[in-house]
Amino acid sequence: MTSSVAAQFEGQESRILRDLNEPLVDHAEGQLFLNDAFKIIMEEVLCKGTDIKQKVCEWKEPEELSLLLDLELRATGEPRERLLQRVKDVAKYSIKTSHPRFFNQLFAGVDYHALAGRFLTEALNTNLYTYEVAPVFVLMENEVLRGMRQLVGWTEGDGIFCPGGSVSNMYAMNLARYQLLPDVKRQGLFGLPRLNVFTSSESHYSVKKAAAFLGIGTDNKAVHGRFVHDRLVSQGAVPFLVSCTCGTTVRGAFDPLDLIADVCEKHKLWMHVDAAWGGSVLFSKQHAHLMQGVNRANSVAWNPHKMLATGLQCSALLLQDTMNLLRNCHSANATYLFQQDKFYDVKFDVGDKSVQCSRKVDCLKFWLMWKAVGSNGFADRVDKAYLVDQIKKREGFCLLQEPDFVNICFWFIPPSLRGKEGNADYQDRLAKVAPVIKERMMKQGTMMVGYQPLGNKVNFFRLVVFSPVLSQKDMDFVIDEIERLGNDL
Amino acid sequence: MTSSVAAQFEGQESRILRDLNEPLVDHAEGQLFLNDAFKIIMEEVLCKGTDIKQKVCEWKEPEELSLLLDLELRATGEPRERLLQRVKDVAKYSIKTSHPRFFNQLFAGVDYHALAGRFLTEALNTNLYTYEVAPVFVLMENEVLRGMRQLVGWTEGDGIFCPGGSVSNMYAMNLARYQLLPDVKRQGLFGLPRLNVFTSSESHYSVKKAAAFLGIGTDNKAVHGRFVHDRLVSQGAVPFLVSCTCGTTVRGAFDPLDLIADVCEKHKLWMHVDAAWGGSVLFSKQHAHLMQGVNRANSVAWNPHKMLATGLQCSALLLQDTMNLLRNCHSANATYLFQQDKFYDVKFDVGDKSVQCSRKVDCLKFWLMWKAVGSNGFADRVDKAYLVDQIKKREGFCLLQEPDFVNICFWFIPPSLRGKEGNADYQDRLAKVAPVIKERMMKQGTMMVGYQPLGNKVNFFRLVVFSPVLSQKDMDFVIDEIERLGNDL
Repeated sequence: MTSSVAAQFEGQESRILRDLNEPLVDHAEGQLFLNDAFKIIMEEVLCKGTDIKQKVCEWKEPEELSLLLDLELRATGEPRERLLQRVKDVAKYSIKTSHPRFFNQLFAGVDYHALAGRFLTEALNTNLYTYEVAPVFVLMENEVLRGMRQLVGWTEGDGIFCPGGSVSNMYAMNLARYQLLPDVKRQGLFGLPRLNVFTSSESHYSVKKAAAFLGIGTDNKAVHGRFVHDRLVSQGAVPFLVSCTCGTTVRGAFDPLDLIADVCEKHKLWMHVDAAWGGSVLFSKQHAHLMQGVNRANSVAWNPHKMLATGLQCSALLLQDTMNLLRNCHSANATYLFQQDKFYDVKFDVGDKSVQCSRKVDCLKFWLMWKAVGSNGFADRVDKAYLVDQIKKREGFCLLQEPDFVNICFWFIPPSLRGKEGNADYQDRLAKVAPVIKERMMKQGTMMVGYQPLGNKVNFFRLVVFSPVLSQKDMDFVIDEIERLGNDL
Repeated sequence: MTSSVAAQFEGQESRILRDLNEPLVDHAEGQLFLNDAFKIIMEEVLCKGTDIKQKVCEWKEPEELSLLLDLELRATGEPRERLLQRVKDVAKYSIKTSHPRFFNQLFAGVDYHALAGRFLTEALNTNLYTYEVAPVFVLMENEVLRGMRQLVGWTEGDGIFCPGGSVSNMYAMNLARYQLLPDVKRQGLFGLPRLNVFTSSESHYSVKKAAAFLGIGTDNKAVHGRFVHDRLVSQGAVPFLVSCTCGTTVRGAFDPLDLIADVCEKHKLWMHVDAAWGGSVLFSKQHAHLMQGVNRANSVAWNPHKMLATGLQCSALLLQDTMNLLRNCHSANATYLFQQDKFYDVKFDVGDKSVQCSRKVDCLKFWLMWKAVGSNGFADRVDKAYLVDQIKKREGFCLLQEPDFVNICFWFIPPSLRGKEGNADYQDRLAKVAPVIKERMMKQGTMMVGYQPLGNKVNFFRLVVFSPVLSQKDMDFVIDEIERLGNDL
């Protein structure tokens, strides 16, 4: 479809050479385009995209969508009107994640203050590594991390924003390893006894990915079950990290942190809390108890882009450490970037704390939103957990368990399966219900809810109820709609 | 400064409880705010921020800036006018990286089509892991990667956008390791012979960071110098990767790829090309020869956010592999996200190729810009390399070397040092010149140019000339201004 390499160069000789003494960008023309694109974004994404009378998705098979979008990249540019149409098309066929009927992931909804912060971040286009190119954001990130650490219960500490919770979890694993065995940074893991990571069977898959990426190996991730006791004693390997979960991905369950902290203290293990999903409960007087004991952890990963709807990505790794562990572990002391003879205090050059070089500014959206709604406003968002009474009352809806928090996991039992629990093929048939309902809802574009199996439980729906754009009638709709879509199954 | 943890909860009981049956977000009010914020962004960042009559930076010491911005996060929210003022303040004190006088990093300038793509990306707020939540972007990323691979010279292959070039380089290192020793994914590096990475002394520091992070150790990064021959033969360790550089960070130098490819073929080593900076020359008929032999590499890292000004972040890892190495190496097969019983072809769920879970959409800005200017337009940007004649002609300016490409490295020799090359303290005094000029330019806000030492060369300026907003008079200004700021030294 796309032209060949040779064709990419076509016309480079024949076209009229621009005068290289003049800029290639016309600011007035560019700003006019941006202005028009902004209007389309407002209309298509933010007005229609949040309107319950509009579809949440416009399902197309990959082949058809590819053709509709005319994705091919060519040698010559396109006129302005065509480009604006492209902005419209991208919006049209994209999922409306801010729509009140989008429950598919652990992010949803929109906050306009955060979005303004994101536009500003994009326009300023800077890099969070030195004070000289990001003075405002070095200080702002520091302040936001401080506010988050205070909610954890730490008056001091360190931290950094990472490109997602998986990377935050990786950082924790690397820091735990470095604290125990600082020579690994220089010498690697060769010739060392096996290291062991402990985590629960429902911990996020990023713990497994981190073990593979860091050279520790997925086999050296031991599962400790939800309740950790002295069983951590290992078989010839060296345990160095317990990764707890606050808000598991599917069930939204919280590990008992105080209990785990006791074990970690006894065995001198690094205690990491993956609170990517659950961390935001710390804003709420009503729910903060779910993370009782988090102040005893060494590190906490917390993604405000999930429950607080700051927008992707916004993921912080918080550390209790005050001894510069993060910088010592990750630094490479590049002389072209982190010169020591600068005219300002180079402790504000935070880039060497990261394993990235270019690092996006992820704090501004959260900071502006925090300024706009205050800690109290965040508490409101967290407390906006709808009751599950309706699901309990409705025939054909069966809760997997009483939810710990906002993840509501349930099966829809179609009429043909009701009362047939004893049949040999019951589980197999039930497993096929959610995928069919999901297909139907997406093809009709009425809503998006996720499903998955878990352990020996066959496919069930996970309804995640936290988006600030939700109202009670959206919840009523979900129940009615699942029934409508699945009643004939 | 920030209130205590207890104070964070203050008022949560006393304030009037919102009706949780209603949304917490008022769309009309929010859109009005966003609209006003957009106007401020237009005026402060895009109009004033690119105007040579305005400062490129508004230097403040950290303590003063902290006070000016009132960064503290509080329990209650702020009124709309105050928030809009904050948007203005953040813009005011941030560095204007799109300003024609910003030469401080390997990114600069603005492209309005790319910026429109970035705003659209932010508004759509989705996650590039499954086709069901990112149908447009799964296909678009695929097409953009294909276009980039074609320029490398591959008709097939694989790839992924990563959060920056450092992560792309890490991925390459992990893939090389996995190809040689697939069991490392499960078993880790324990008990294996040392692995060795080969790279040049001027390669980017991320190669070192990657070796540390992946458990290989920085001592196992061997320096091969710019010209690799059979010296790769290692001392008891297992070589598995040669990381070449196309466009070194400071000098902009290009490794001789064909020569290195011969060695890699002979020794069966993975050949990675870190073309984060230089990769964009592939668009240019005039400059593509600098990367002659890149088609023989196993992997290429290329950041369009640098020379092409797509905006941060836009970093692709390209692979010649067609055997699903990326997915096999990184996958964890999470059943809650990558269900195999979906109603569409799950090969379009690309998330398991990544070690991230949440992954930002980085392709749209590049795609929209490519559509707008075409491959030819990108060639124009790459070819817009100003001549260094002026620097050669001007007294007191001394080139470090004839530049390979757009990095122009030079010393400014103030009058007091001219003709004193033989003095014992010459190098020490010269080393102090650039930092002082840098301090003066930033405090006056007239421009930003980076400096650094390299090997035994003391501090010199690096002028990077590629931004699409530049004109010849901006270049004239730079030379005059350095002279003005440094003539008394």
